[in-house]
Amino acid sequence: MTAQTDALGSLKDRFRRRSLIEDALAMLYWDRSTLMPDGAADARTDQIAELTRMAREILVAAETSDLLDQAEQATASLAPLDARDLHLMRRAFLLETAVPADLVEAAQRVGARSEMAWRQNRAANDFAAQQPFLQEIMRLTQETAKVRGAAMGLAPYDAQLELFEPGLRDTEVTPVFADLKRWLPDLVQQILDRQAQAPEPTEPAGPFPVPMQKELGEGFMRALGFDFTRGRLDESLHPFTGGIPDDSRLTTRYATDGFAEAMMGILHETGHALYEQGLPADRRHRMVGRSGGMALHESQSLVIEMQLCRGPAFLDHALPLIRQTFGDQPALETANFNRLTTRVERGLIRVDADEATYPLHIILRHGIEKALLSGDLAIADLPGAWNDGMADIVGIRPADNRNGCLQDIHWMDGAIGYFPTYTLGALAAAQLMAAMRSALPDLDSQVRAGDFSQLLGWLRRHVHTRGLDATTGEIIRDATGSPLAADAFRTHLEARYLN
Amino acid sequence: MTAQTDALGSLKDRFRRRSLIEDALAMLYWDRSTLMPDGAADARTDQIAELTRMAREILVAAETSDLLDQAEQATASLAPLDARDLHLMRRAFLLETAVPADLVEAAQRVGARSEMAWRQNRAANDFAAQQPFLQEIMRLTQETAKVRGAAMGLAPYDAQLELFEPGLRDTEVTPVFADLKRWLPDLVQQILDRQAQAPEPTEPAGPFPVPMQKELGEGFMRALGFDFTRGRLDESLHPFTGGIPDDSRLTTRYATDGFAEAMMGILHETGHALYEQGLPADRRHRMVGRSGGMALHESQSLVIEMQLCRGPAFLDHALPLIRQTFGDQPALETANFNRLTTRVERGLIRVDADEATYPLHIILRHGIEKALLSGDLAIADLPGAWNDGMADIVGIRPADNRNGCLQDIHWMDGAIGYFPTYTLGALAAAQLMAAMRSALPDLDSQVRAGDFSQLLGWLRRHVHTRGLDATTGEIIRDATGSPLAADAFRTHLEARYLN
Repeated sequence: MTAQTDALGSLKDRFRRRSLIEDALAMLYWDRSTLMPDGAADARTDQIAELTRMAREILVAAETSDLLDQAEQATASLAPLDARDLHLMRRAFLLETAVPADLVEAAQRVGARSEMAWRQNRAANDFAAQQPFLQEIMRLTQETAKVRGAAMGLAPYDAQLELFEPGLRDTEVTPVFADLKRWLPDLVQQILDRQAQAPEPTEPAGPFPVPMQKELGEGFMRALGFDFTRGRLDESLHPFTGGIPDDSRLTTRYATDGFAEAMMGILHETGHALYEQGLPADRRHRMVGRSGGMALHESQSLVIEMQLCRGPAFLDHALPLIRQTFGDQPALETANFNRLTTRVERGLIRVDADEATYPLHIILRHGIEKALLSGDLAIADLPGAWNDGMADIVGIRPADNRNGCLQDIHWMDGAIGYFPTYTLGALAAAQLMAAMRSALPDLDSQVRAGDFSQLLGWLRRHVHTRGLDATTGEIIRDATGSPLAADAFRTHLEARYLN
Repeated sequence: MTAQTDALGSLKDRFRRRSLIEDALAMLYWDRSTLMPDGAADARTDQIAELTRMAREILVAAETSDLLDQAEQATASLAPLDARDLHLMRRAFLLETAVPADLVEAAQRVGARSEMAWRQNRAANDFAAQQPFLQEIMRLTQETAKVRGAAMGLAPYDAQLELFEPGLRDTEVTPVFADLKRWLPDLVQQILDRQAQAPEPTEPAGPFPVPMQKELGEGFMRALGFDFTRGRLDESLHPFTGGIPDDSRLTTRYATDGFAEAMMGILHETGHALYEQGLPADRRHRMVGRSGGMALHESQSLVIEMQLCRGPAFLDHALPLIRQTFGDQPALETANFNRLTTRVERGLIRVDADEATYPLHIILRHGIEKALLSGDLAIADLPGAWNDGMADIVGIRPADNRNGCLQDIHWMDGAIGYFPTYTLGALAAAQLMAAMRSALPDLDSQVRAGDFSQLLGWLRRHVHTRGLDATTGEIIRDATGSPLAADAFRTHLEARYLN
C-alpha cells in the first residue's frame, strides 16, 4: 500500500465518521420537528451544536488537510469512483475552510438578525426597516462568495450555486432560463385562455378524517415503492423528508377540510424519500454515495408529484381508491379532480404557484440575485426591480412589498444561488419523464394498474444508484441523452394543458 | 485563576461535551425502542457506536487524566460541590480506564455470546449448555472486578456494586438483607394467611381501548406533576424511561383486555421521570447534576407506584376517574381493586413478584452472586444452590432451571451487583414515604383530593434537586434522619397487608 492510497483510506475513515455524526444529527433534527416537546428546545440546540462542532472538527482538522494533499498526488492512478470521492472530499473541505472563520461568523450573525427582523418587517410590509439588514447581509455574501470563489476557482455567483448544487455553473443556468423566458409567458397565456373555456372545478367537500388520509397516503407510498422497513410517515408543521437513506422519515400536515394538499405533499416527499432509499448501499458514508444537490433532489420529488401523480394515468389509478376511502362525490370525478390538480394562475406568491408559472417566479429571482451579488443592482432599488420584473415576466404587479420582494426567506440570510435549483429540478423531472416514456412505452397502462415497479426501476438505475458519482448535469445527460434543457418541460406543459 | 481551578474548568468543559453526546445518544436509544423501523437497525448501531466512541474518547484522553491530576492537587480548597464533582469525574475516569482494554473487550465478547446462548438455553431449559458460557463470563468478571477494585481501593464485590450505585458498599447491604431475611418470610406467611380469608378478587372485564388508557395515564402523569412541556408518553415493547431531564420520554405497553398493568407501568415510569425532570437545572451536564444510582432511581419509581399509587388514598382518587373512563363494573369497586393491586403470592419468577416477596428473590441472588464472585460457589453447583435457596427463602422449589437459575439475564453477561439495587430501592421508597408522612401529616387527604404538589415538593427538595451531590446512603439519611434500613418497609407491609 502506497502512502497515497493509505491517505485515501484514512480520509474515507474520517469522512465515514463525519457522516455517522451527521446521520445522528439528522435524527435529532427530525425529532425536533415532529415529536420534541417545546421545553426541550434549548437542550436539543446544545446537543446539535456539540455534534455539529465535532463533525466539523473532523473535516477541518489539519490532519484532513494533510491527507488530502497526500492523496491528491495519486489522483491520476485512482479508480474513477475514488477520484470522484477525493474531489468531493476536497470540495467539502474547501466549502468549510475557504472563508475565514471570523467572516463566516459575521455572516451567520448578520443572517440570523436579518432573518429575525424579516419576520416582523414582512408582516409590517416595511421594506425600509429591512433594507439595512439586506444591505449588510449582501455585503457579507459578496465578500464570502469572492473569497470562496477564489479558493475554488469560481466566479462569485458560481461559488454561490456550488453551495446548493455541486458542479453547477451559471453557464448551464442562464441560457436555459433565457429560453424559458422566450416562450413560457406566451404559453401561460394560452393555458389561461384554454382554462377559461372549461368549467370552474369544484372542491371536494369534507370532512376528511386524518386516519383515513394517512392510510390512503401510506397506500400510495407503498405502491410507489417506499420501503416502510426503512422509513416512516409522520406529521410536522411543514412537510419535509428527514432521516437517512436506511431510515427515511417523511412528514406531512393534514387538514380535515381537504385532503389533496396533504396527499400531494406526501407524494412529493415520497419522491425525495425514494431517492434517498435508492442511494447505493455499498457506498454508505462515502461522499460518492450521497444524494446530489438541490436541483437533482427536487427533480426526484417533482418526477413523482408533478410528472407522475398529477398526470391522468395516475389519477385513473388513484381516484377509485380516493372515492373508496372518502365516499363518492361529484368533485372526485376524473375531469373535475384533474382540473383541480392542474389549475394555473398568475399569482404573486412563489410557494403558491403552479408548475406552469413557477419558473417565471424563479427567472425573476435569478436575474435579480445575480445583479445584487455583482452590485449592479442596489438593495434600495430592489422593490422597483422586483415589481417591474413581476409585471414583465409573470404578468402581475405586486401592490406591496410583503407580497413582493419581502415574501421569501432566502435572500434575508444570504442564500443567493438557491432559487435556480427549484426550476432546474422541474426541468430535469420533465426531461427524465420523457426519457422514461421512451424507454417504457407501456408506462401509462402500468401506472393505471398501480404498478410503479418499472418506473422506480428506471429511476433507481439512471439516478438513485448513481449517488454523487457525477454532477447533476452529467447524470441528467447520461439518463436522457441530452444536456439539461427546457424542451421536455415545454412539451410536457403543452401536452398536459393544451391538448 | 490558579492552574488547579483552570484544570477544573477544563474538566467541566470536557464532561459537559461528553454529557451532550450522551444526551444525543439517549434520544437515539429512545427512538430505537419506540419508532425506528427494523431496517434501520444496522445504521443506528453504527451511529450509536460512533457517538459512544467519541464520548469515551473525551473521557479517557491523556489530557483528561492530566487535568484530573492537576485539579486534585487543590481538592482541599474546593467548594464541596466542586470537590464532589471532581470525585465523580475521577470515578468515571477510573470506571472506564481501570480495566485494560483487551480484558474489557474479552468480557464484552463473551458476555454477548453468553447472552445470545442464554436466549436459546433458557427456552430449552438446558443448564448444561449454558454452563460453559457462565463459567467463562464469571471468570472474566472475577478478573475485571479484581482489577477495578485494586484501582479504586475496593473489594471485588464492592467494585461490582460501584458499577450500578456510586459509593454503595456491601457493608450497607448485607446487614439490611440479613434483617429482612429474619422476619420477611414469616411476614409473607402472615400476609398469605390473611389474604386467604378474603374473597378472591375479580379481574375487570375489557375491552379497554388504548386511546382511553392513554388519556387516563396522561391525566395521572399530569396530576402527579409530570411536565409535558419537557417530556412525552409513547409506546414500546418494554416500558422504560428514556431521554434526558428536559425531555423525559416514558413508554408503556397497552393490552386491551386489561388496563391495570399499563397504568401501573405508567405510574412506575412517572416516578423515574419526575426524578429526572427534578434534577438541578443549574447543574446540567455536570456529574453532580446527574441522577443517582439504580437504587435511588428505583426508590423514586417505587415511592410513586408502590408506596403512593397502590395505597388506599390514591385509589380513592383514581377509581372514580377509572370508572368514569371505562364505565362502572363491580371489579372496579375499591375493595376488589385494592385486593387486585396488592395481591401477594409465592412465585418462581422475580419479575412477576409482588412487593412483599420480591426482596426474598433478591436476597437469594445477593447471597449466590457473592459466592459466585468469590469462587466459593462453582457454576456447576448453581442450580442446586438456587433451588435450595428458593425453598428456604421464598418457600417454593423450582421444578426446572428455566424457572430457576436461568430466568434472569443479569448474570448471563456478568452483571453481578445489580440485583441488590432493586430491593434497596424498595426499602428507600418505604423510608422516604414514612418521612414524608411525618412531614406532611395531611398527605392522605391531599392525595384523595388529587393534589400531589406537596408530595412532589418534598421529593424535589430532599431527593431530586440533590442530583449526585452525595451517595444514595447519605441522601436517604439526610432525607429521613436514619441510615437506609428495612424498618420502614416492615412497617409499611404490616400496615398495608395486616391491618
